[in-house]
Amino acid sequence: MSLFSRITIVGLGAIGGSVALAIKQRGLAERVVGVDWHQPALRAALRREAVDHATMSLEEAVRGLHCPTPGPGSTSTLPPRELVVVATPVGLIPKTVHQVAEAVCSSAAGRDVLITDVGSTKATVCAECGTELSPLSGGCRFLGGHPIAGTERTGLEHAEADLFEGRLAVLTPTAANRDHDVALLVRFWQELGARVLCLDPEEHDRILARTSHLPHLLSALLAERLQSPDAPYAGPGFRSTTRLASGGPVLWRDIVSSNIDSILEALRDYESGLQHLRETIERQDWDGVRALLESAKRNRDALETFATA
Amino acid sequence: MSLFSRITIVGLGAIGGSVALAIKQRGLAERVVGVDWHQPALRAALRREAVDHATMSLEEAVRGLHCPTPGPGSTSTLPPRELVVVATPVGLIPKTVHQVAEAVCSSAAGRDVLITDVGSTKATVCAECGTELSPLSGGCRFLGGHPIAGTERTGLEHAEADLFEGRLAVLTPTAANRDHDVALLVRFWQELGARVLCLDPEEHDRILARTSHLPHLLSALLAERLQSPDAPYAGPGFRSTTRLASGGPVLWRDIVSSNIDSILEALRDYESGLQHLRETIERQDWDGVRALLESAKRNRDALETFATA
Repeated sequence: MSLFSRITIVGLGAIGGSVALAIKQRGLAERVVGVDWHQPALRAALRREAVDHATMSLEEAVRGLHCPTPGPGSTSTLPPRELVVVATPVGLIPKTVHQVAEAVCSSAAGRDVLITDVGSTKATVCAECGTELSPLSGGCRFLGGHPIAGTERTGLEHAEADLFEGRLAVLTPTAANRDHDVALLVRFWQELGARVLCLDPEEHDRILARTSHLPHLLSALLAERLQSPDAPYAGPGFRSTTRLASGGPVLWRDIVSSNIDSILEALRDYESGLQHLRETIERQDWDGVRALLESAKRNRDALETFATA
Repeated sequence: MSLFSRITIVGLGAIGGSVALAIKQRGLAERVVGVDWHQPALRAALRREAVDHATMSLEEAVRGLHCPTPGPGSTSTLPPRELVVVATPVGLIPKTVHQVAEAVCSSAAGRDVLITDVGSTKATVCAECGTELSPLSGGCRFLGGHPIAGTERTGLEHAEADLFEGRLAVLTPTAANRDHDVALLVRFWQELGARVLCLDPEEHDRILARTSHLPHLLSALLAERLQSPDAPYAGPGFRSTTRLASGGPVLWRDIVSSNIDSILEALRDYESGLQHLRETIERQDWDGVRALLESAKRNRDALETFATA
């Protein structure tokens, strides 16, 4: 028996498409529905058999959600059988979640729908979704998620069924979330091959500012400053250090604007480190330079003890 | 007929080992000799058939160099038939080149030996080698080189025969170098699969400070500042941005110390860019952030029009 009777993916980009492909490959839902505002993405999703049904209408997709008629012994603590994964750019997530919830509320009663997302920042999303979506309203609940498994390439053509294999998925439950929803979503991501950790939404954003948003900005700045005559001399080192710079500018602007304070803190901290490193080189303190490089290598090599990159 | 009667590789690390493997695979020399001060590297080079002969003694290796007896029509402008590739850490290159030259001078007369290197900085190396190695002394000449095809992994076990395929190799001839030596070394690197460009040694170091040494330091600093509790949240983005940080600390300390001025200039320039980016975020100038990210993406995507990374 599938984990869900139905899963709807809203936003069929590289991440949403990968979620859809992974669900289909592992048979986690009896039916997979895809929603996107771009016709080519819908066509590509059908062609790659990432979804069973594709539509440009969120209302149509969500109205179409159906859960099995509850049996005599059913209570409200039964696990939800419908899942909606909102995989839009982070700036659109709260609005989209509310649209899904409204459509669910205006459809048949007795539905039990869990909504999650894959956004890169969580505090704003969880605050805006959690406030409006009372756990009791319409049998429709939100629980934030973030699979740390991106790609700098956008669009469904770069979706991969094994994108989440060995990666980390973070869930950010709040006090309003039910334990069984958390357990169900943990199992969902584990079935897609991910390890799962739970974090407070604010803590998630503070950590990811350092491990994801700062690296993105450093990478982008390095690429932005590349002068054309230097480009032929940009070897594999420059390329891996700037790989992230190919990410979507609007997507990343929205990530930055939804996590300003933590990102500014990470930037200031890095700036002071950079100044210190420059001064170490200025005074030709080669033991100091070597010590920094050794500590860097230790930290970086230690990452290999976690799941493979 | 092979390009060289004999090629000697001094330093069988990841780069030197890759050069040896590539030479053997393409049959560029009748005989390949490897020199290293570490017995395991010599054993590994023989096991992988990267060299025909392996020795810990530079003198033995170089004494063993033999060129065909010059025919009646031979002149000093005949292309050299012996090549020595110095692939030691950059700090050891000048001393090693001089050791090679002395050993050549003290051996049989009439030898015609071209010495090159694969060091990441060129101004110091070329100045120190060029001054001492007069083009006329002992039929032994130096011509600087730098294949921009590194790996963060060190040691012969990470050597690959195709490491230079589609990469760039830079040669840094000075006024003292003969045209036919340059042409021969261009052909050597082309045979290994690389494109070749020639640069003035100082210009090479200024450019590489921006495209290689700065990215290395930014990557290392990011890795160095990673706090242990954050490590599980370091995803593929953090990993590619910090890949270079796994490079050898002593190796990179020496690269930095041999290119101080250009690296400091690149660091100061990046620092001012980082401050500007931080201020753009502080005043919530999202158009400004987006413009920077778009320019970064354009530059990074354009790199894909050069040889594949």
